[in-house]
Amino acid sequence: MTGIRTLARQLDLSIGTVSRALNGRPDVNARTRERVLEAAQAAGYRPNQSGRALRKGRTSTVGLVLDTGETGPMGGDTFFLLLLDQMQEVLSQAGLDLVLLPSRSGGDPVSVLERQVARGVVDALVLTATRREDPRIAMLLERGVPFLTLGRSETPGLYPWLDLDFERMAQESVARLAAEEHRRIAAAVPQRDLNLVEVYLRGYRKGLAAHGLPHDPALELRACASENGGSKLGKTLLTMPQAPTGVVLAYEQMAVGLYSRMAQEGRVIGRDLSVVGLRDNAQLGFLSPSLACFSLDVGALGRALGQGVLDLLAGRRDTAQVWPMPFHPGGSIGPPEGAGPDAPPPGGAV
Amino acid sequence: MTGIRTLARQLDLSIGTVSRALNGRPDVNARTRERVLEAAQAAGYRPNQSGRALRKGRTSTVGLVLDTGETGPMGGDTFFLLLLDQMQEVLSQAGLDLVLLPSRSGGDPVSVLERQVARGVVDALVLTATRREDPRIAMLLERGVPFLTLGRSETPGLYPWLDLDFERMAQESVARLAAEEHRRIAAAVPQRDLNLVEVYLRGYRKGLAAHGLPHDPALELRACASENGGSKLGKTLLTMPQAPTGVVLAYEQMAVGLYSRMAQEGRVIGRDLSVVGLRDNAQLGFLSPSLACFSLDVGALGRALGQGVLDLLAGRRDTAQVWPMPFHPGGSIGPPEGAGPDAPPPGGAV
Repeated sequence: MTGIRTLARQLDLSIGTVSRALNGRPDVNARTRERVLEAAQAAGYRPNQSGRALRKGRTSTVGLVLDTGETGPMGGDTFFLLLLDQMQEVLSQAGLDLVLLPSRSGGDPVSVLERQVARGVVDALVLTATRREDPRIAMLLERGVPFLTLGRSETPGLYPWLDLDFERMAQESVARLAAEEHRRIAAAVPQRDLNLVEVYLRGYRKGLAAHGLPHDPALELRACASENGGSKLGKTLLTMPQAPTGVVLAYEQMAVGLYSRMAQEGRVIGRDLSVVGLRDNAQLGFLSPSLACFSLDVGALGRALGQGVLDLLAGRRDTAQVWPMPFHPGGSIGPPEGAGPDAPPPGGAV
Repeated sequence: MTGIRTLARQLDLSIGTVSRALNGRPDVNARTRERVLEAAQAAGYRPNQSGRALRKGRTSTVGLVLDTGETGPMGGDTFFLLLLDQMQEVLSQAGLDLVLLPSRSGGDPVSVLERQVARGVVDALVLTATRREDPRIAMLLERGVPFLTLGRSETPGLYPWLDLDFERMAQESVARLAAEEHRRIAAAVPQRDLNLVEVYLRGYRKGLAAHGLPHDPALELRACASENGGSKLGKTLLTMPQAPTGVVLAYEQMAVGLYSRMAQEGRVIGRDLSVVGLRDNAQLGFLSPSLACFSLDVGALGRALGQGVLDLLAGRRDTAQVWPMPFHPGGSIGPPEGAGPDAPPPGGAV
């Protein structure tokens, strides 16, 4: 391109250096990059994405698709801000930029993505909030766009994924309550058609079976994935004909509303109702009694996701990683003997 | 371009229709768009961003710069997920796409943005978390890139902005406490160099002056913009030689930690310490007693931001909008007479 040649001559730099500076490569010192960008600006030269993509056939940009509006199972706090920070750290070291492609709650998730793919703005995509049947995955496979998913899906195909260990979390949550002699344990899962709902319930049922507890479908409760959903869950639990003495939560923020509702009704968490939450975060750390739940190093997950993208761009399609989450004990678990006076005797349904 | 001509002939559609379909314009029906994209895919034609940008000189994409890592003053909950959802709604109706450009906590915010600008991936930018002196603003003005800011800055220049009314919120927060006869009122603001900190403190001082209360710099407290920062703030308040009887908060999530710390110390919010928070959200709604704070329709703010971008792209640079936030009463305010037995008598410093 003439533009670059002219700039290089003017600045007394090699074309390669000017090109690297314009492309934002890390192997150009900051002072030189600044000189090149200033000269390019002064000359009215705008080395836009377009020319680069046409020359190189790639954009050096990775897109992460983020559901906006209603919160997903990990959207209740600063999960994504922390995740993206560390993911970007890994990508930027490889000269890649990260952009987020918001996907509107009211929109069609496939057509938005289809347009982004057609426009060729990214080299690779990361999908989040995977659905059990995920038409986005089918579309991307068909179009041959490299992608990985944070979350699994039952939509078939060879694509790398990384997912939290929802099955083991659910199973261990049940085990922790069963160890305290709880016999009637409910599971609360988000209402949305997210794949993790099925995975979590599978673990819940395995946990019950492992402790010889009967599976009662009436104890698999759907709630809105929000603080308010947790409050409504509390009301449901209190009005059930055979109230469970313990509940395991597949969405972290539900604990906030559940604690509040129980306090309003004069019930004590850990005595009248035992609770195992999903994941600790900055807000849940202030609940009293402390919430038994699982720990996640969000930054480490973000770095793993960044590495997953690098592997993907290197051609690996077969990586699958279940992210372990250690249990974090808390005062929200106690023996069921102390169940509230209105509650039926524990184990009544067994 | 031959590609489009060939496709149009093959599909028996006009070149204009094929072009509109490839460009994701809303005035093509879904079935036709699908046919065009499938044919384009089959023909190996990838109408990428590059060709389009070179032809039209613009990308139809708006970038919003989002600080990742440490949370900003509005990052503590799903603020951005809700904001972006409605902003995108407005932009998409105008045929524009929204992408988020994450800005790493550890990185240099100017150089990241500079690279994005140099690559020409967006037509316009929205900056958030504006600093008092914001080098990003100076850089964008110099390069002539259209942008607007969510938040003001003291960096001079003609650019549109939209900001929450931090000054009036602080002023009214003080007034609400002064109306209950509080004489010693502290303000807690984030430690970061955000412009809103200055704006909030200006309102705080005006509020004190309006009620004839002395300004004591020792009552302007800096805290980490987090739940944990609120907890530490509680400790500070309890150990101050002349403890204030009320506090106004410039960061919403501080209330979570502050409530928790006070409860741990056996203090009752609204009796031993009166609190006015910044903004209600899904979590704060479950605090007890209810938090006096301000209401924000985040969706409406997102739509206004989308409209601001459209105005900007239409050439308007002079729009400035302070977003009003109505007061929301709560049980966290009470008269200072009931201050804890350890606290010095109210008004001791007056």
